[in-house]
This record gives sequence, C-alpha cells and structure tokens, in this order.
Amino acid sequence: MTQTTPRYDVVAIGNAIVDVMAPAHDDDISRLDLAKGGMTLVDEPRAHDLYAAMGPAREISGGSAANTLAGMAALGSPCAFIGQVADDQLGEVFAHDIRAAGIAFATPVRSGQPTTARCLIFVTPDGQRTMNTFLGASQFLPAEALDESVIADAKVLYLEGYLWDPEEPRRAMRRAIAAARAAGRKVAFTLSDAFVIARHGDDFRALIAAGELDILFANEHELAALTGCEDFHDGIAALADKIPTLVVTRSDKGAHAVSGGEHAHVAAAPVAQVVDTTGAGDLFAAGFLYGHVRDLPLETCLSLGAVCAAEVISHYGARPEADLRALVAPLLGE
Amino acid sequence: MTQTTPRYDVVAIGNAIVDVMAPAHDDDISRLDLAKGGMTLVDEPRAHDLYAAMGPAREISGGSAANTLAGMAALGSPCAFIGQVADDQLGEVFAHDIRAAGIAFATPVRSGQPTTARCLIFVTPDGQRTMNTFLGASQFLPAEALDESVIADAKVLYLEGYLWDPEEPRRAMRRAIAAARAAGRKVAFTLSDAFVIARHGDDFRALIAAGELDILFANEHELAALTGCEDFHDGIAALADKIPTLVVTRSDKGAHAVSGGEHAHVAAAPVAQVVDTTGAGDLFAAGFLYGHVRDLPLETCLSLGAVCAAEVISHYGARPEADLRALVAPLLGE
Repeated sequence: MTQTTPRYDVVAIGNAIVDVMAPAHDDDISRLDLAKGGMTLVDEPRAHDLYAAMGPAREISGGSAANTLAGMAALGSPCAFIGQVADDQLGEVFAHDIRAAGIAFATPVRSGQPTTARCLIFVTPDGQRTMNTFLGASQFLPAEALDESVIADAKVLYLEGYLWDPEEPRRAMRRAIAAARAAGRKVAFTLSDAFVIARHGDDFRALIAAGELDILFANEHELAALTGCEDFHDGIAALADKIPTLVVTRSDKGAHAVSGGEHAHVAAAPVAQVVDTTGAGDLFAAGFLYGHVRDLPLETCLSLGAVCAAEVISHYGARPEADLRALVAPLLGE
Repeated sequence: MTQTTPRYDVVAIGNAIVDVMAPAHDDDISRLDLAKGGMTLVDEPRAHDLYAAMGPAREISGGSAANTLAGMAALGSPCAFIGQVADDQLGEVFAHDIRAAGIAFATPVRSGQPTTARCLIFVTPDGQRTMNTFLGASQFLPAEALDESVIADAKVLYLEGYLWDPEEPRRAMRRAIAAARAAGRKVAFTLSDAFVIARHGDDFRALIAAGELDILFANEHELAALTGCEDFHDGIAALADKIPTLVVTRSDKGAHAVSGGEHAHVAAAPVAQVVDTTGAGDLFAAGFLYGHVRDLPLETCLSLGAVCAAEVISHYGARPEADLRALVAPLLGE
C-alpha cells in the first residue's frame, strides 16, 4: 500500500458524452416508442431519427460519472476523469467543459469514426428524463488508455455501470479495479440503470462477492434488479453485509446508507420546482463521496448528496449551476 | 407586383451560428479585455483562447435573425431562413434546431473549412451578455445560394446588420433586397450593433436614402450611431420621415415606433428576474413583425415585441422557451 497522500479525491471512468436535451410531451414518448424514465442504447440511424423527431434542443456536457465529478469539483474536490471522445466538435465541447470545471482529463482523443457519444434526452413536463444513448467513441475506451499512476493517485476509483455494456471499456474498468486495489485505494461503483443490471447483473454480483467493491450506489429499482428482492428493506439487508458502504437513493423518498454496521437515512432536500431529473443520482453520489473521502458522519454524507441532487433537478442539465459549495456550507459547519 | 398570397410571413438572411454561453464575472470581462455588452468579431485563434478561458458552457442555436424567426414561428408565423453552415456537428445542431422550430431552411451546407459559426457569450450576473463571434462558414454565404422564389414568396425580407461585415453575405443581401423589391415585398433591416454601424453606417444611410428599407429596427445606441444625434428624440425625428416604419428599443425603458406619421410607445414588459439579455432585440423584432404582417395597430405590434423580449431575457439562451403564443393571447384578444 502506498503511503503518500493521493493527489485526487476521486478518479472516475465513464461515458464522455454530450447531452442533447429538449422538452417533450408524454405523447412524444409513446409515439416514438421510448422507455420513459430509462436509458436505452441506440445505434446511429436510430439516434438520427430520434434527433429529427426532437424539438429545438440545447447541448450540455453530461455522462453519469463525469457529472458526479463536476459536482465534486464544484464542492472543492480535486478529481480526474478518464473517458473517450472523438476528434470532433462535440468532443471539444466535452473536453472543454470538464476541464473548465477544474477536473483533470488527459485521455487521448480518438481519431476517425464513430463520433463523440451523444445522449438524446426527452424531458417531459413532470421533470422525468428519457435517455437514448449513442455510445459512439465512448465505447472504444481502450484499457491501454488508462493511466494507472492517476488511479493510484486517487483515494477512490469511481466506475459507471453504463459503461459496462461495451467490451473495451469493461476490460479497461476491470484493469482499473485491479490497479486501484493494488495501490490500496477504494473502488466505488454506480449501478446506473436497471436494464444494465438485466444485462450484466452476474458480473456485478461476482464483483461484490469477490470483495472488489468498497462503495456501491444504487437507486431502489436497481437494488431490486440486483438482489431480486421486491421489498426495499429486504434488498438492503441482502447486500449490506457484502459491501462496506452501500448507498441507495429513493427519489423524493430520500436516501439510505449502510456502512460498518451503521444505518443512516435522510429525507430528500426540498426543491421549489422539479424541472429536469437528469443527473439526480450523479449529483447525489457527488455529495456523498465528498463527505466520504473526508470521513464525515454517514448521515452528513447523505445530506450532502441530497442537497447536490436537489440543486441539479431544479434546472435543465445534469451539471450544477448554483454555487454548491455555498449550498452545503451549513452541513460542513461553515 | 405579384398578386398571390405569399407562403411565408418573413424570410430572413442571417448568421447561422451556435451560441456557446457561460456565466462569467465582471473580472473575467476586464481580464480578457472584452467589450462588455457588445459584439466583437474574433478570428479562430482568439475564439480558441476565449473558449479555453470560459467556464463550463452550454450550446444553444442562435444568430440574430434566426432567433427572430424562432420567435415568430413560436407565435405561429410561417417563416424561412437563409444562412450558411458548414458540414460539421455544430452545423447539424443549427439546422436541426431551426427546422425543429418549424422554419424552412434549405441553404446548402458548405464543405471544408472554416467550421460553423460560433458566438462565445459571457453572461455576467447583471444579465448582460458580451458576445465574441467567430463567423466561420457564415461569412461565406454566396449570393448564388439565394433562392429568389423564397424571397418572392414572403411578405417581408428581414436582414441582419451583423451579416453586413463579411463581403459575400453583403453581396447576397444586396441581391436579396433587389429580389424582394422586384416582387413587391417589404424589406426590414436590423442595425444589430453600434460597432457594425461604425464600420458600415454609410452603406446603411445610403440604403435608407434610396428608399430600399421599409422597416428599420434599432436600439437607442444604434440610433445615435446612425444619426449622429445624441438625444434619443432628435434621432427619431432625424429618421422618421425617411423610413416607412421605424422601431427603436430602449431596454428597460420600453420601445418606440413611428409609422405613417403615427408615433407609439410602450413600456418594457415586466420580468421577474433578468437572467440573460441575449436575444432581447431579436425577440422584440419577432413580436413586432408578427403584428406588422397582420396589420395590427402600431401599439399592439410594440406590445407583442415587449412580451416576447421579456420572455427571452428571463432565461439562458436567445430562443423562446415558454409558450409565446399563450403569452401574447391577451394582446390578440384570444
């Protein structure tokens, strides 16, 4: 185990993706045969058709793990990101936005096709987001692109379940887990989506059984998909002794965490108006991890997550707009 | 003069540009040596440097005349746009957004360099926008790309002063004016920016003196730059008998119009919070033109403009987000 103080709080591996977001009606969701509230992988022709069917949109950098780092950076955490963009304008947008947030990002750009990943997000009047992801260059993150010195230099390696689908990044993430463990670092994983678990649940359960994961983030649907327990509390009980720190979010019903035998719960933080739920889980993870790497009490970690999630669902886009640091100051006794 | 009813209310020629917008502090404006509140043309290296200095941004289609059409389309006007994008991702974004707004857009894409135009917009806490425009492909709109049948098929040809700077679009706009007049259509012009007038005021004054313009949009600074009159009312008096319809906006002091000897004035429409003034003048023109092509009373045209401008400055981005049609319904007796 290395004894030096790591340079980064978190290094994350995730989709390097630009969100293309537009308001939509529930009619559009059914007419276009979309899975409301979920994330569906789409190929380029389908992405093209869906884009043509979308209203005027705005482009905002996204990606689950990248959003989490943007939240942590806004709180003051030094972070690094690993992900694959193409040599195109959306790749420039992604790279600009993550670096402008203060996050180290040095994965070499990939030439040629496919293009940088896009997520076409239809936001219905209830604030719910329906995501359609064209993975593009993101799915070709090679294991060779990992800078293991960066992984060794971060307290936590954070991995995004969405990126478990494509083969190359999955291999890269397995190698990253090994590198983090060899360096004595923690490994955190977010399950991302119930459909991802339907495809890769066996992998995730094997990682957990092997003790490879120190922190697991899930929402209640993902918890049910992973454990097979319909009841929320049964699900927590089934996992709690297999994961050092388990964090489960329940949208407007708040969040739970179990860590070292301690069980904590917080209510959801108040939101004047839910505009767009994109990034809610990502920003919850940001707040929680910020507290976790500082050894703050478990309930404080949850409260930090709740405040960050509440900010991001109050506006369009999955990255924070308000001064998160000021919002959480009371929780930090500042 | 053609006797058929035109298919479009307005056909506009303008920059086909994507806005790249980020919050900024007044310190950034001075540190980066930007002209606060103005529009500065920048070359690609300067655009690159400014982008690197910008915080995390969002991309939203813009362009002054295109924004005006987006407002008119939201009100229910059939419109067409002529402008030049490159064969790249930002070009796709611009074309998607304008077509998704219901606006006809058929200018052929331009291959090769330069890229689609970008406007780097720094939005300070007072809601003021400071624009830095890389004209890119937009400056190469060729006169040959004009579809004169579209111009003949619109009640009003609307031209953007910003596009008078580059030579090719200037030539295209002169040709478009001739085509509109030959077809018996009206020509509307927006002066865009006091610095544009500093460069091309003689051209604009010559167009006015020759009776080529039927409707002129200006803000008070542009009026002063064009007429040389420091006093606002002197400026209006100097122009009023040379332009059939003159519209002058004064930000939070409302707007004036003089048409056929009639003088009308409205106060600014109330706004809960000014977030971003980008597009205020563009959307004012949208509301005014919507009323004008329907022969509504002059004061109603101004009120329509004021409501549309108030909507667009209440959020980020220069295109409407709320249901403009519902917002103006009371003015239309609906």
